[in-house]
Amino acid sequence: MEITVMKFGGTSVANSDRMTAAAQKIAKEARRGRGVVAVVSAQGKLTDELIAKAKELNTEPTLREMDALLSAGEQISSSLLAMAVAAQGVPSVAMSGWQAGFVTTGSFGSARIKKLETERVTAALAEGKTVIVAGFQGICDGDITTLGRGGSDTSAVALAAALGADICRIYTDVDGVYTADPRVVKTAKKLDGITYDEMFEMASLGAGVMHNRSIKLAKKYNVPLEVRSSFSDLEGTIIKERYPLEEKMIRGTACDEKTAKISLVGVSNIPGIASKLFSTLKDNNIHTDMIIQSLGADNSWNITFTIPVDNAERALYIAHSLRNEVGATRIDCDKDIAKVSLIGTGLMENPEIPAKMFAALTSAGVNIQMISSSEIRLSVVVAEADAKKALSAVHEAFFGV
Amino acid sequence: MEITVMKFGGTSVANSDRMTAAAQKIAKEARRGRGVVAVVSAQGKLTDELIAKAKELNTEPTLREMDALLSAGEQISSSLLAMAVAAQGVPSVAMSGWQAGFVTTGSFGSARIKKLETERVTAALAEGKTVIVAGFQGICDGDITTLGRGGSDTSAVALAAALGADICRIYTDVDGVYTADPRVVKTAKKLDGITYDEMFEMASLGAGVMHNRSIKLAKKYNVPLEVRSSFSDLEGTIIKERYPLEEKMIRGTACDEKTAKISLVGVSNIPGIASKLFSTLKDNNIHTDMIIQSLGADNSWNITFTIPVDNAERALYIAHSLRNEVGATRIDCDKDIAKVSLIGTGLMENPEIPAKMFAALTSAGVNIQMISSSEIRLSVVVAEADAKKALSAVHEAFFGV
Repeated sequence: MEITVMKFGGTSVANSDRMTAAAQKIAKEARRGRGVVAVVSAQGKLTDELIAKAKELNTEPTLREMDALLSAGEQISSSLLAMAVAAQGVPSVAMSGWQAGFVTTGSFGSARIKKLETERVTAALAEGKTVIVAGFQGICDGDITTLGRGGSDTSAVALAAALGADICRIYTDVDGVYTADPRVVKTAKKLDGITYDEMFEMASLGAGVMHNRSIKLAKKYNVPLEVRSSFSDLEGTIIKERYPLEEKMIRGTACDEKTAKISLVGVSNIPGIASKLFSTLKDNNIHTDMIIQSLGADNSWNITFTIPVDNAERALYIAHSLRNEVGATRIDCDKDIAKVSLIGTGLMENPEIPAKMFAALTSAGVNIQMISSSEIRLSVVVAEADAKKALSAVHEAFFGV
Repeated sequence: MEITVMKFGGTSVANSDRMTAAAQKIAKEARRGRGVVAVVSAQGKLTDELIAKAKELNTEPTLREMDALLSAGEQISSSLLAMAVAAQGVPSVAMSGWQAGFVTTGSFGSARIKKLETERVTAALAEGKTVIVAGFQGICDGDITTLGRGGSDTSAVALAAALGADICRIYTDVDGVYTADPRVVKTAKKLDGITYDEMFEMASLGAGVMHNRSIKLAKKYNVPLEVRSSFSDLEGTIIKERYPLEEKMIRGTACDEKTAKISLVGVSNIPGIASKLFSTLKDNNIHTDMIIQSLGADNSWNITFTIPVDNAERALYIAHSLRNEVGATRIDCDKDIAKVSLIGTGLMENPEIPAKMFAALTSAGVNIQMISSSEIRLSVVVAEADAKKALSAVHEAFFGV
């Protein structure tokens, strides 16, 4: 049996009308004679509401109970969506994460999938039923766990991999992956296709369509993805291992305003200092992205790095705690920055590309604070106030107006 | 370890303040050195809201998915209440029905408990934790089931029985069992105690404090119950096997307006007709309470019986379908009736009691349509418009003003 996995996010099932629209898409796919497994998130803002209720009762709720609480959101969605699919005349069965066989690690709130026991799902498909699975959740030693950020996408990709699905469709509120965020850059163009690596960078660098965790998993198991709109029948953007670039080397742009930078000024030139600092940050699960070390006045060094803005306070605390050891004369933190990136496979093979990007930023009067590059991305840090102007300038230079 | 089981209904956990109040009661009991297991219902109107959502999507949702949906309500409550108890400084763990070991039959929506595997609950109690269990639910062959009406009370009583608890406290929005509904009869008095049998009749005859199913279970396993208020620390009403009646033979009164009567007029005098009618009703799960067969004109018979008003249409349909067979000349249905009852162990041993009850009703100008009695109850059917007047008159005659 050829299998389609379809994933519907919270906005795609936020109310009865949308739930019915999703059910119609599922029923249509099932009527084509395919096995259909749909993975669904909690409705609209339900997860946020449950978190708020929990915080009212206990400012530090136990993670185990938090997971039991939040998993109810997807259990509600999956039950309702199964009913909605049945109302379309297509047999359907709802399954919670543990019923669908998601066995995870025991790290509540950010569990990882250890294995997927697909017997129940496979048996239901064999009986001609569509299977509606509660995303974001699993089980460990009889306790319900949740997968954390990007969890429902990850559930869908894992199921597609385990079932050998031809395609894993991610239904969302945009109709594909664009060359830039279309809410910011009006001239942004929808992409027909993009590679896993490019999509991973896009996601990591601020394009919010999918979480990079699920893209990594799709790449690992070579699961073809399609990002599609819940609100139309338009074809979306296909994400796979290789995708011909045609004339262009650049696939898209991204802008991440949820970033901050920390600078340690006047650091003594002692070997091992950077290693000490970054290993401590890593031990605290703080992901540093760009790192620049530059020689300052009087032979001391400046170290500057970017981190997610949510981690800025913690990173700053760590930097201060190491201040004497690293001998910094000053520690600065700037949360009002943004990272603007250009993404494309083999991008750095062509030296004209960075030159063109910097020229576009200069013409737009945007000051570049930091630069970082890899085989597949070129990122600059700019003032947050310049972010939209910078993104538009870079997008226009490479994709036209 | 001495164990207290505490059950909190939907109104007792409807919002954060009430949830915290319930948690304080649980924490207080735990600090007395007792093992505490709390059973909790879904918050306020959540179950009704989930049913409404389901009906919007599918007018005939599958029972399996309905149970998966509704069970999320208690899962949310139990998680939140465990957090609220932990916030009181008392270690606590939330368990769903299947985690707490409720193995049920597979009749979704009205499952019965087959066995209770209490290992997890016992282990948690041994670790010094209070256990907060999602009521109303269990598991059958890997599918979530719900216990139907009175389900959370039944969960609590079953746990108390299986754990050998000293007491099972039912926290609700009234502070005990009264001689009449205090919202209707202002002079109603709270009872210190009542027997299982009396309470069973009270519940069956319209006193809404507890569901008769859970009282039956409590009697079977001799679990002492206490009905208490969630909103005060007052002692409630104890329900147990025997309770001294002191001077009084009458324990209380009840009024059930959710009843209807159906009359088959002019039935041919054929043996087996009543049997045919009532076995068909029973096969359709329609519970008949009072039955009167009387000789009418020209040697034909009238058969009149009462049923829950929710079943009236179905019962009427069945009566009509048997009309030719039973040879009835007319079938009437009256939904505007009420059943007013007097409850007390050994009540019918004293012939003065029925006489006193009928006199009180006559003085109040209430016409009696039907009479039925047993060892422990005496019920009359009156017009629904007379229900409150009748209840007050009977209550005043036996309990004073």
